[in-house]
Amino acid sequence: MTTTTINRAFRLRRRPEGQLADADLDLVDEPLPELAPGQALVRNLVLSIDPTSRIWMGHARSFTPPVPLGAVMRGLGVGEVVASRREDLRAGDAVVGFTGWQEYCLADDTLLEAPLTVLPAPLPAPPSMFLGVLGHTGITAYLGVEFLAPRPGQTMVVAAAAGAVGSIAGQLAKRSGARVVGIAGGPEKCRHVTEQLGFDACVDYKAPDWRAQLDAATPDGIDLDFENAGGELMDHVLMRLNLNARVFLCGMVSQYNGSGERADWRGLVNIDQIHMQRATVQGFIVTDHLPRWPEIIGELAQLVLSGELHHDETFTEGLESAPAALDALFTGQTRGKLLVRIAEPSALPVAAR
Amino acid sequence: MTTTTINRAFRLRRRPEGQLADADLDLVDEPLPELAPGQALVRNLVLSIDPTSRIWMGHARSFTPPVPLGAVMRGLGVGEVVASRREDLRAGDAVVGFTGWQEYCLADDTLLEAPLTVLPAPLPAPPSMFLGVLGHTGITAYLGVEFLAPRPGQTMVVAAAAGAVGSIAGQLAKRSGARVVGIAGGPEKCRHVTEQLGFDACVDYKAPDWRAQLDAATPDGIDLDFENAGGELMDHVLMRLNLNARVFLCGMVSQYNGSGERADWRGLVNIDQIHMQRATVQGFIVTDHLPRWPEIIGELAQLVLSGELHHDETFTEGLESAPAALDALFTGQTRGKLLVRIAEPSALPVAAR
Repeated sequence: MTTTTINRAFRLRRRPEGQLADADLDLVDEPLPELAPGQALVRNLVLSIDPTSRIWMGHARSFTPPVPLGAVMRGLGVGEVVASRREDLRAGDAVVGFTGWQEYCLADDTLLEAPLTVLPAPLPAPPSMFLGVLGHTGITAYLGVEFLAPRPGQTMVVAAAAGAVGSIAGQLAKRSGARVVGIAGGPEKCRHVTEQLGFDACVDYKAPDWRAQLDAATPDGIDLDFENAGGELMDHVLMRLNLNARVFLCGMVSQYNGSGERADWRGLVNIDQIHMQRATVQGFIVTDHLPRWPEIIGELAQLVLSGELHHDETFTEGLESAPAALDALFTGQTRGKLLVRIAEPSALPVAAR
Repeated sequence: MTTTTINRAFRLRRRPEGQLADADLDLVDEPLPELAPGQALVRNLVLSIDPTSRIWMGHARSFTPPVPLGAVMRGLGVGEVVASRREDLRAGDAVVGFTGWQEYCLADDTLLEAPLTVLPAPLPAPPSMFLGVLGHTGITAYLGVEFLAPRPGQTMVVAAAAGAVGSIAGQLAKRSGARVVGIAGGPEKCRHVTEQLGFDACVDYKAPDWRAQLDAATPDGIDLDFENAGGELMDHVLMRLNLNARVFLCGMVSQYNGSGERADWRGLVNIDQIHMQRATVQGFIVTDHLPRWPEIIGELAQLVLSGELHHDETFTEGLESAPAALDALFTGQTRGKLLVRIAEPSALPVAAR
């Protein structure tokens, strides 16, 4: 058994104003205590960087409480159990859960905000995929497309189309025969969305004529909105909604990088169109649906392993890179799932491909 | 058969900016032509004044096209057929439908935006009730409460609680055992809402401390929002939504009295709470549900006639009073269903009560 006495962790020093600043987080080295009964030590391998990470740093009313000042920054990760005094975790287990922005996670009943899930052994796919296409982002895409239920003849719009959720959602919707229009930042990403991911069209929201692009790409209006963006993009989508449109509201990433003060939130101007078009809007958080995860992971894994579902991963290296990675997410510099590689697995068996 | 050769009508001269001005409408006397085959002449008895009337005067994207400039102002009314060359309408029939802001309506296939519905004879209730509790506002309340499905232990909020829709919605919700909190303008209306209509509490939105009042009246948060108001009221409601809240979006009356320019719409700031609380929002227009109207009217009529459902009507007198009535609706000076009495029925039999 390998142990260490020092943990490196990001603790939240203050709530960011706008873009994350160096001084908002403290990178600290801290000694780890001996394991007590009921505790396990998890070595973090990969950390997931998500738009919601930025929400948790603020004090906005969210689906989980803000990260307390002074606490280790909350984050989803895949790790391996290196030592355990718990019955439900054994040394060598690969786990996924809220392991935090740190190299080691001391897992016990009180520290964990949600239980760690033990992944199957041998791992059917690389650990990082359980934070992406076979994890919370892929499952969000799956359940969103299930809610929207696209049909041939319908038009679905997906913002952040090159991102971890949007890229999978659009591909799944295409399988049902709907017209799928992505929205992404920059011509290169848009090309990727249409050429690699197979969307029917992609609107470059960084272009000055993005509204005209979106109008041209949705000549029959918009029936289904897989909404990740909020803000001006969503407001324009709302004006093009068709009768009985459906809106899956799983993120409003354009709104997260503010001070967290309500006065800074732009919100939506055209919300009356929900009324006028008799639309249905469904707010969504993927962790409400944990009982369905295994079934959905199985379906997605089949599609990925058979090559029918393309997925991208962008890695940054080392725990230290996490804050810069989060900033890159908001400036749209990444493709697919954004991950921080913290350590190599010591002994995790991965199934041969 | 009584006929007349002159019709008095309000035609839309220009689109209002803010509050309706005298010069926005023309009150004109126009000769009526002889009836051609396929036409019927309907004498308007009662005209319904609704928040949506103001929307139709503007050019906002709505569930029906704006009233064209120069056209007779659109409006729901109850009338009696005084002459007919149509098989589906007979002299003496009482009808409800889009008879317009005028004394007489020339009904034919092209002029009517929706068919006129012939009411049962003898009328089971006074004509005005088919524009209120037994008409589109009562049915909206009924279907909204059906969607929200209030249960004991839940808290439902209803804005415009003394109005035609809110007053009925709140009473129906109370019958299911939920806590019902109204929002209305002024202490007198609030007293009416709690004392006559039986709501558990009522918040005076004209009081400076209305936010604190709403917080105090919803100590366990808000599970169900029967939304008629939009704007600041709805934004505050959103911040108090509970997990899996339901929002029935049937109006945003605070937003209708602007110029109709998108730049003037306030919209909603706290729309992210729909996401965070995994709420479901349903946009609603009552005319989508015409097949269910007879069944629902029957249920509501039973409740009204047995005295279990209280309803209020406010009348103004004469077609000329319609613009002032619409203004009174937006300044909150009316109670229950707002109606313009245009003429007395000449020969409509009303069932004995």
